[in-house]
Amino acid sequence: MTAAESGFTLWFTGLSGAGKSTLAHAVGDEIAAQGRRVEVLDGDEIRTNLSRGLGFSKADRDTNIRRIGYVARLLSRNGVVVISAAISPYREVRDEVRRSHEAPFVEVFLDCSLDELVRRDGKGLYAKALGGELPHFTGVSDPYEPPLYPDIHIHTDRQTPGDSRAAIIGWLEQRGLLDRTASVARRLYESR
Amino acid sequence: MTAAESGFTLWFTGLSGAGKSTLAHAVGDEIAAQGRRVEVLDGDEIRTNLSRGLGFSKADRDTNIRRIGYVARLLSRNGVVVISAAISPYREVRDEVRRSHEAPFVEVFLDCSLDELVRRDGKGLYAKALGGELPHFTGVSDPYEPPLYPDIHIHTDRQTPGDSRAAIIGWLEQRGLLDRTASVARRLYESR
Repeated sequence: MTAAESGFTLWFTGLSGAGKSTLAHAVGDEIAAQGRRVEVLDGDEIRTNLSRGLGFSKADRDTNIRRIGYVARLLSRNGVVVISAAISPYREVRDEVRRSHEAPFVEVFLDCSLDELVRRDGKGLYAKALGGELPHFTGVSDPYEPPLYPDIHIHTDRQTPGDSRAAIIGWLEQRGLLDRTASVARRLYESR
Repeated sequence: MTAAESGFTLWFTGLSGAGKSTLAHAVGDEIAAQGRRVEVLDGDEIRTNLSRGLGFSKADRDTNIRRIGYVARLLSRNGVVVISAAISPYREVRDEVRRSHEAPFVEVFLDCSLDELVRRDGKGLYAKALGGELPHFTGVSDPYEPPLYPDIHIHTDRQTPGDSRAAIIGWLEQRGLLDRTASVARRLYESR
């Protein structure tokens, strides 16, 4: 099976505001431009479609992540490149999703310091959470367990989105999950 | 896009015991033998993976069917042939799932008379339901709304499983959703 036929899952994990959704779509667009089938599973969209009614207790978060994992498993084993962009705060259930996969599973840690997240805080959520107004806010009033051995470790407080995207694409090419010639050809084309 | 690249959803609907699961796997095996990617979404498996905790009220059944529909939509728009084998008793939510699809959606009514289901009753469920022991048993103590205009109408009380399978495959070939030459070649090969 060539790279072009083999699906895999890029499993992003990181705090709210760390750049999961933005980077998922940037990476997804680049991979789709190579002619691959891509699905971005966004945390909010999945909550609407698969997990309405679930809350933010550990049990409910785990159930939500298992459901995203199940969908990612079905898509990736059918040749789709899946990018999951949910927080997925708990290590054990991330590992469980990895084990359930038939296709390659790549854990991508989007690491951003709390200081930087508080500084950005586009939606004012960190201010509220630190003020005690938001219970179950991951990283402040709810746990976040960083990956011990992520396949890819991105520091979104130090790397630009473009650099982060390039780092992920480069890793996938190096492992043979993406076709290197496709992206070389595209970069040559774009730099004309 | 050729037939070999275009996904679609075969949406089975019918009472418990009408043959949904058996026929889904028989049809799925035949399509997979043509080199296509196939996923059978079995009602029980989906309840375990996406809908644990939901019951059998109309609202919960509708939620369950919407979730299967969402997964079928994602898979089929990525080139997969999806076969859903849930009862899906309510017309409105079946139509909603059809409308949500980007890929072709084919409703297959597995029609079997209650007399015949009671006669077969492999698991003794109809006897229990008719005896008042099983509330929310579709077709006896819970509603079943047959499709008004199914794309394919199979009478599983009159057609053999082999004939039912052939009728579905033939319909898909005729509409260009399956490659006719693939199945002709396979039949010639098998009849050597």
